[in-house]
Amino acid sequence: MKKRYRNGEIWDFEHEIGELGNREVILGLDGGTTSTVCICMPIFPFSDPFPDPLPVLARAVAGCSNHNSVGETAARETLEQVMADALLKSGSNRSAVRAVCLSVSGVNHSTDELRVLNWLREIFPTHVKLYVQNDAVAALSSGTMGKLHGCVLIAGTGTIAFGFTEDGRQARAAGAGPVLGDWGSGYGIAAQALTAIVRAYDGRGPVTILSSNILQTLGLSSPDELIGWTYADPSWARIAALVPVVVSCAEAGDRVAHEILQDSVEELALSVKAVVQRLGLCGEDGKASFPLVMVGGVLEANKRWDIGKEVVNHISKSYPGVLPIHPKVEPAVGAALLGWNFLMTESQKEAYKR
Amino acid sequence: MKKRYRNGEIWDFEHEIGELGNREVILGLDGGTTSTVCICMPIFPFSDPFPDPLPVLARAVAGCSNHNSVGETAARETLEQVMADALLKSGSNRSAVRAVCLSVSGVNHSTDELRVLNWLREIFPTHVKLYVQNDAVAALSSGTMGKLHGCVLIAGTGTIAFGFTEDGRQARAAGAGPVLGDWGSGYGIAAQALTAIVRAYDGRGPVTILSSNILQTLGLSSPDELIGWTYADPSWARIAALVPVVVSCAEAGDRVAHEILQDSVEELALSVKAVVQRLGLCGEDGKASFPLVMVGGVLEANKRWDIGKEVVNHISKSYPGVLPIHPKVEPAVGAALLGWNFLMTESQKEAYKR
Repeated sequence: MKKRYRNGEIWDFEHEIGELGNREVILGLDGGTTSTVCICMPIFPFSDPFPDPLPVLARAVAGCSNHNSVGETAARETLEQVMADALLKSGSNRSAVRAVCLSVSGVNHSTDELRVLNWLREIFPTHVKLYVQNDAVAALSSGTMGKLHGCVLIAGTGTIAFGFTEDGRQARAAGAGPVLGDWGSGYGIAAQALTAIVRAYDGRGPVTILSSNILQTLGLSSPDELIGWTYADPSWARIAALVPVVVSCAEAGDRVAHEILQDSVEELALSVKAVVQRLGLCGEDGKASFPLVMVGGVLEANKRWDIGKEVVNHISKSYPGVLPIHPKVEPAVGAALLGWNFLMTESQKEAYKR
Repeated sequence: MKKRYRNGEIWDFEHEIGELGNREVILGLDGGTTSTVCICMPIFPFSDPFPDPLPVLARAVAGCSNHNSVGETAARETLEQVMADALLKSGSNRSAVRAVCLSVSGVNHSTDELRVLNWLREIFPTHVKLYVQNDAVAALSSGTMGKLHGCVLIAGTGTIAFGFTEDGRQARAAGAGPVLGDWGSGYGIAAQALTAIVRAYDGRGPVTILSSNILQTLGLSSPDELIGWTYADPSWARIAALVPVVVSCAEAGDRVAHEILQDSVEELALSVKAVVQRLGLCGEDGKASFPLVMVGGVLEANKRWDIGKEVVNHISKSYPGVLPIHPKVEPAVGAALLGWNFLMTESQKEAYKR
């Protein structure tokens, strides 16, 4: 069983850090439904481009920090623990922290944001700058190196498109889960494939090699058994895990699998186009360039049938200025860079006032 | 709390029935996930058509008897209790029973059937004929007055098409639940409508009056709140309950609602056509007549936008011999008629042997 810390014990290590803790740092957190990652990055001077590789002092990992999933107390404890771990590993303490940028799933409203800000405020001294965002924001930032401009498309088990303009407007599309039309997601692709098996079996749809390939993967002997398998466990990730089988069937020339992937491409492209359109990221003539950060297993497959590449092709027909980016750093680093960027912007403003 | 009977107590009333219990009866049961109905019908002599109204001695109602939902012990107790209630109300006892025909949801395999037959065998004397079927069979029989020939289309929260030939072959289509493509069901219609609201809101789909009408019905103030509402409760029936709102929007001329209903019509027709095709119910020339029994809230709406009527129109383009039937009796009566039919057939066979 996971050891439960009493509040305070988490930070006991700080007494032993002493003067080492004087190097100023930023904490970047990516809090997902599966795991939470915290990066401790030193403050580095402004440069364009950023130093490569980026200076990272420490990386800590913990479990789920989505308050909708595990409850507020557990979510808060996970976040506090993972930040303490990252500081301990980097030989720092809270007084060395200049900023915390926390991107966490389940933060959808300003009330969620405020609640998380209040937790953080209790943990850190008042001089520490605190930023709280939805987890899509860290994903965007991991591709744009900390700039909130452009669009991010996430397609893993679920899918969402999230965009920002340089003047701070934002928009999203999809991200409403499988019942509410996230058909382009990994779950959507796999559920369509399972459906195709049932339809081929009962005479409503064409024969497909998805039947034999998926049943074999699941260790089932007949499509009849799919119903029991499907409803035995409500986990969306378990169904989405079948995406690679669908891709390999499409690569083998299966028409049904090909059409499922093609539909997914259109759905994902539609989400991006809706965000680009609403924010005017493409400029007035529709041809301005904008970054499109692409994140998640569905887009990273990089096989012969390359869903991510097809999505970009589709979008570029409407918006030729799309600049696809496959991030080289993880979202927690994106969050740290975002924190760094916020800090730099605020310093510039303060310098300007003087 | 429901009183729990010890096995045996259920049948205590029989000591007091005495000679009244000599009139021979049939029990017909329709066991669903919501409720279970048992009809006690006297044996009546063969006549074509049947006497109208049909002689029904008693009707008893109990809760869920789907063993997948409530477990085997509770399901068995519910079935036993509802049969005892029907016999008590009709002034009969078990020695008066000639046949029991039990149509129950959750019976999909011969192993399910055998298990239920074994329960029934423990309850009734050996001379009683026992028949166990899936609940779609009682629905068919309620329209064909006990004959297992033709096709039944059920479209309520879920949907299934089930068909039989006179020589005993059977086939089904759909009935695999919402993840596996039951798009024509009440759940399917309503989920598409909720999806249309999200898509209109984030710029992926056209504006629709479904947004205002459904949000008002649910007491929500913004499409943002739909996500929370949708995943707060996994009940499919709760979502399917929105079908009448979709129908009224289509009747008011809303294009999006109209297309959702049109898709549902095509899906439901496709299920029936797959069954008809596989069983050859339409004859070799595709023009033979066959009964299509139509059951469930989606098909019974009988409004200006009449889904059931459109489904029949659609099917008749391929199979002009389709004879739609809206049953006048409930499925439990269908089960009793089926039991009566089985009995008559067996008597004829025995008479022939002599």
